Amino acid sequence: MNDETRREHCLIRALRRQPVSRTPLWIMRQAGRYLPEYREMRARIGSFLTLCKTPEHACELTLQPIRRFPLDAAILFSDILVIPDAMGLGLRFVEGRGPVLDTPLRDMADVRRLPVPDPEIELSYVMEAVRLTRRELQERVPLIGFSGSPWTLAAYMVQGQGGGDFPRLRTLIRESPELAHRLLATLARAVTDYLNAQAAAGVQVLMLFDTWGGLLDQSRYREYSLAYLQQVIEGLQGRSGPDPVPVIIYGRGGCPCLEDIAASGCDAVGLDWSCSLGAARRRVGKRVSLQGNMDPAVLLASPEAVRREAARLLEDYGAGDGHVFNLGHGILPDTDPDRVAVLIDAVREFSRPRHGAAPVAADT
Amino acid sequence: MNDETRREHCLIRALRRQPVSRTPLWIMRQAGRYLPEYREMRARIGSFLTLCKTPEHACELTLQPIRRFPLDAAILFSDILVIPDAMGLGLRFVEGRGPVLDTPLRDMADVRRLPVPDPEIELSYVMEAVRLTRRELQERVPLIGFSGSPWTLAAYMVQGQGGGDFPRLRTLIRESPELAHRLLATLARAVTDYLNAQAAAGVQVLMLFDTWGGLLDQSRYREYSLAYLQQVIEGLQGRSGPDPVPVIIYGRGGCPCLEDIAASGCDAVGLDWSCSLGAARRRVGKRVSLQGNMDPAVLLASPEAVRREAARLLEDYGAGDGHVFNLGHGILPDTDPDRVAVLIDAVREFSRPRHGAAPVAADT
Repeated sequence: MNDETRREHCLIRALRRQPVSRTPLWIMRQAGRYLPEYREMRARIGSFLTLCKTPEHACELTLQPIRRFPLDAAILFSDILVIPDAMGLGLRFVEGRGPVLDTPLRDMADVRRLPVPDPEIELSYVMEAVRLTRRELQERVPLIGFSGSPWTLAAYMVQGQGGGDFPRLRTLIRESPELAHRLLATLARAVTDYLNAQAAAGVQVLMLFDTWGGLLDQSRYREYSLAYLQQVIEGLQGRSGPDPVPVIIYGRGGCPCLEDIAASGCDAVGLDWSCSLGAARRRVGKRVSLQGNMDPAVLLASPEAVRREAARLLEDYGAGDGHVFNLGHGILPDTDPDRVAVLIDAVREFSRPRHGAAPVAADT
Repeated sequence: MNDETRREHCLIRALRRQPVSRTPLWIMRQAGRYLPEYREMRARIGSFLTLCKTPEHACELTLQPIRRFPLDAAILFSDILVIPDAMGLGLRFVEGRGPVLDTPLRDMADVRRLPVPDPEIELSYVMEAVRLTRRELQERVPLIGFSGSPWTLAAYMVQGQGGGDFPRLRTLIRESPELAHRLLATLARAVTDYLNAQAAAGVQVLMLFDTWGGLLDQSRYREYSLAYLQQVIEGLQGRSGPDPVPVIIYGRGGCPCLEDIAASGCDAVGLDWSCSLGAARRRVGKRVSLQGNMDPAVLLASPEAVRREAARLLEDYGAGDGHVFNLGHGILPDTDPDRVAVLIDAVREFSRPRHGAAPVAADT
């Protein structure tokens, strides 16, 4: 068994709550603006959306952080809003304003008209990027594919842009719950198809970003977000087979609903940094692994502060398996890449004594 | 006993968990941009800060919503950032960008230099506005005074502006905890003096806005935010006397730490809309009253949806006392003022059957 295969095992095994010899680590938005090589390419190519839609560029950007750092996973360079774009809502990224959808949804007629995209047609550029990246990675690390959750996608599709707390969808669920449910059901089908296609094209882990579920109270969270996440997971192919692709749900603000998320059928829950890792572990028991959850702002502090905080989080989680180290949200654009190296070293150093001997020779 | 005194009793009594004949209601940011009479004055006078700093204008704006609606409290028209301004950090409000502090704090020398303002000198315009407003209100409804929490003020003072998740203060507490603690201790003294002066000038309820406490995990929340809120409450005059001014802590994202906030010495906890009111009540028992927590986006929906949601929240809280109806965050600027009237009517209508006969004749 070569190094590469062993390293893959580290993340996949941790997501399955199997023994590992150290805590695996990857970083949300690890391919992105904090890397000079990303900024160089962005300046050269121009548009963020062109980078997403060109398989060669998406592949290159996915690989950039893997070349620089000994991370335990690659995550496909893409954006959650490619689904609304494929549904015809007209995605643009406006400098200083973020994503904009040109034709946000306004009424039931808009929702009825909404097509469920065929991922191998309207999103073929994503599948091509997955196949290309898998070839380039040569099993060095596993490739994570992802989608926005139905609720989070709906928030953008009704508002037309980000930057606020998506009041239009929050209004809609009170004004016209049936319209909201119809939209979410359509999105659940689209997300399911999209993730199944990604897995068929070669991604080895699936992640659902429920970035805006925290805008709901707990009972509405279960009704409008979690119910559709469950539909997606139930629709994934091979879940009852011998070697299912692990599924991670990242829920920003999801801490109050942690037990419910853990019971949704996912393999791991990604936590934002407001949620205590140790308390979360006690709440979920052995049902799921936990991923997270260092405050991204720590990476703006000194190397010593980064090491202290890494040690503190590992201590909070405690000895044993089922933890994937990550940030609690995306890495900040003004992070010095050297801090990432410091973090990776610290997690490797501090996590080894916390794990028993792994059944594979070494997860170096 | 005249109508005015009875109406005052309704809010103050609810904050003290005493019986009332209906659930009192006021609205965060009830004086503000959703009101045409506010927009007219803002256009005529010009700057938001001039409105805050001119006692006659602040008084007039405080009274505007009280003239229009049968609300159960007035809240002083002001801004939490008047304290950093009084400390010399240079507050400006930039159109489309929000508040900006010209000289944010950078190092220990900046923090050491920070003066604790004398509220009767540097913030005399606030005290003058309080005295003027109390005279104008003629006991019609009680007047609420407020301050930002030490943590929330520190977030702006280190970042220099809002609009993000205040990464600089989040970095600082890891990089240099002693500097952060020194800043927070200074702010706790400033906030204590400021609230004591407001109470001496005539406010009848004190509210602490801990708007950004939710950026911390639970153990850091206790260390960096709640500990200083407790210092403030312990420093308030007359707390052990016969008739203390009730204190409300509003904690956005504070749901996970609700029990700790309830044990801080405050009389009531203001909840954001992600926290279930019924579950929150079960968690705090009879220790504190609860204030909140309708999603402000509901007021953008139809009158029927507003009535449904008001009924739902009252049902969730359950029968009995100790509830002050409010939104879970500030009213949205594009709210139709007529929806506020619908909400007030609904809360009056639906809450009466939930309360026993009050010891005062009527809280109409």
